[in-house]
Amino acid sequence: MVYGVLMAGGIGSRFWPRSRKVRPKQFLRVLGDHTLLQSTYHRLQNLAPPENIWVVTHERYASLTRDQLPQIAPEQVLGEPISRNTAPCIAYAAMRLHAKDPDAIMIALPSDHLIRDLQAFRNVLRVAVEAARSTDALVTIGIQPTHPETGYGYIQFESMTKRSLKAYPVRAFAEKPDIATAERFLDSGDFLWNSGIFVWKVQTILGQMKIHLPKVYDSFAEIASSLDTEKEAVAVQMAYQKCPRISIDYGVMERANRVLVVPGSFGWSDIGDWRAVYDLSEKDKHGNVLRGTAVVHHSSRCHVEASRLVVCVGMHDAIVVDTPDAILVCHRESVQQVRNVVDYMRAHGLERFV
Amino acid sequence: MVYGVLMAGGIGSRFWPRSRKVRPKQFLRVLGDHTLLQSTYHRLQNLAPPENIWVVTHERYASLTRDQLPQIAPEQVLGEPISRNTAPCIAYAAMRLHAKDPDAIMIALPSDHLIRDLQAFRNVLRVAVEAARSTDALVTIGIQPTHPETGYGYIQFESMTKRSLKAYPVRAFAEKPDIATAERFLDSGDFLWNSGIFVWKVQTILGQMKIHLPKVYDSFAEIASSLDTEKEAVAVQMAYQKCPRISIDYGVMERANRVLVVPGSFGWSDIGDWRAVYDLSEKDKHGNVLRGTAVVHHSSRCHVEASRLVVCVGMHDAIVVDTPDAILVCHRESVQQVRNVVDYMRAHGLERFV
Repeated sequence: MVYGVLMAGGIGSRFWPRSRKVRPKQFLRVLGDHTLLQSTYHRLQNLAPPENIWVVTHERYASLTRDQLPQIAPEQVLGEPISRNTAPCIAYAAMRLHAKDPDAIMIALPSDHLIRDLQAFRNVLRVAVEAARSTDALVTIGIQPTHPETGYGYIQFESMTKRSLKAYPVRAFAEKPDIATAERFLDSGDFLWNSGIFVWKVQTILGQMKIHLPKVYDSFAEIASSLDTEKEAVAVQMAYQKCPRISIDYGVMERANRVLVVPGSFGWSDIGDWRAVYDLSEKDKHGNVLRGTAVVHHSSRCHVEASRLVVCVGMHDAIVVDTPDAILVCHRESVQQVRNVVDYMRAHGLERFV
Repeated sequence: MVYGVLMAGGIGSRFWPRSRKVRPKQFLRVLGDHTLLQSTYHRLQNLAPPENIWVVTHERYASLTRDQLPQIAPEQVLGEPISRNTAPCIAYAAMRLHAKDPDAIMIALPSDHLIRDLQAFRNVLRVAVEAARSTDALVTIGIQPTHPETGYGYIQFESMTKRSLKAYPVRAFAEKPDIATAERFLDSGDFLWNSGIFVWKVQTILGQMKIHLPKVYDSFAEIASSLDTEKEAVAVQMAYQKCPRISIDYGVMERANRVLVVPGSFGWSDIGDWRAVYDLSEKDKHGNVLRGTAVVHHSSRCHVEASRLVVCVGMHDAIVVDTPDAILVCHRESVQQVRNVVDYMRAHGLERFV
């Protein structure tokens, strides 16, 4: 059986002030009528049935998740007591699925991405599922890059001149590059963006964790007997406290031998910051994106999200995000620094706004 | 006796969104602890006693004025039924003072200026009062220009090489110049900024109005018998309806023969727009002016007036004025256009924000 595991524990601080600790990005309607979490759930239709869709999130978001996804049973939402990056999150989910179905194939994916072409996405995922089923490889989804992006990690793969929709061996993972390196990656033709979407047998990922992340593996192996009992919460709490903070990419993918990648082009964006929302939005003839009650005068390429009236005069490339208690005014070239300001506020007595 | 007449009927739309139709600029604490109206009142201390200070304003601001100036009697606040620029305002006040004291000397001054050196201001005004008393001239106050400002009108006067504090004959009034003309004015040494502050005998100004603005004069001459009676409100209503909309500068000062100017230097600003507030404010080492809860990051020369939390990231020369229902984000070079946006909003269903 195929299972979907939505990773929904992030706090999305680059999306401040709309994304807050009490309601991060994945629970917001950033674009369109659904929250990013809901869109991610719908994306798995025809890949896994609702009873096989699980969500792992911080326990403070468990009830928000259940509210937004009434289609799934409450116990399919797993609450993490502490955020420890993706490796512990995937270990917990894999252990849980393994107890239920030792042959489970797991699609693990972030819950805050945007994907435009659902059909293409599902076709790519089906190829990845088939590759995971027929091999003991860890399978990842790589995005055909469209520009030399410096905000994503890259995957180098064994590319062919004539590509078909199939899984290719991965040569290496690369961290977020500088612009020169990103341009070289793009020109070479054998680099893909790392989407953070993975497919594997739970047996395979648990086996690889046992080798490459024994501390994480052992922490969760201990809780196997408590799963689905009253003791689960306490056992999980202890497991997370023992776990190091580590990503599945760094902890397993970069170290494992048999890693495959399925390249895809399906209008993917990780909507990592306000710039991405602007890029994905329809613009007026002056390049402005205006949501809510907004008036612009002698202004171009501005992005306004108004909760009250917002008026821009003589502004260019500005992002104005207005919420009931806080306003962000940011130049588009500085969107990556929003996260730093959130850190600053947390440390300087403004945590109530975070 | 010397009387002060504060002209307080403007709507200050270049100061939107803090200045609103229900509470324009002169009723706001723009800089410091007092409203501009209150500062103007205090400025006249030692020049005219409280019982001689009158305010002319739109009738919708009469109670606001009485609230802000409890030192003066309610009847010293004259309400205009319609705004008709400064000539009718001065005619009404002059007629009222003349009925009370035919020998009155009147200081007429806008209520939304900033003056730093009160002692110098009062010395200049005393010279102007003395000139008005000893001659039948209209006396105006000219400001020694400090830079080639294009936002003010100018007064050309009979300058001397060695100036003393006294009244000089005015040669001509000049409209707001372009920058080349303003530079020429500055270099010539015989141009002053037109402050809009006037001193005259009420007999003199009424006599000059009778000659140069007979329509305005006649409208108010008719109400003389109704002043200070129950009929005053209706009579004033009729007078204003008959009056053309005209400024005292254009209607009288530019046409009269005997006009004198007293040049002064007392840290004057008409605080005409948000740029002026920035220029007059203390700045941090990055040139930012931050009022309220504001955080700036990689930003310089920004001016933030926050009612909630305002965060600026990567912004330069931006003005952010945050009020409970509306926010302005304006480049400093575009402050003059705020007025146009207010006009636009009034015409496009956003009058509730004006």
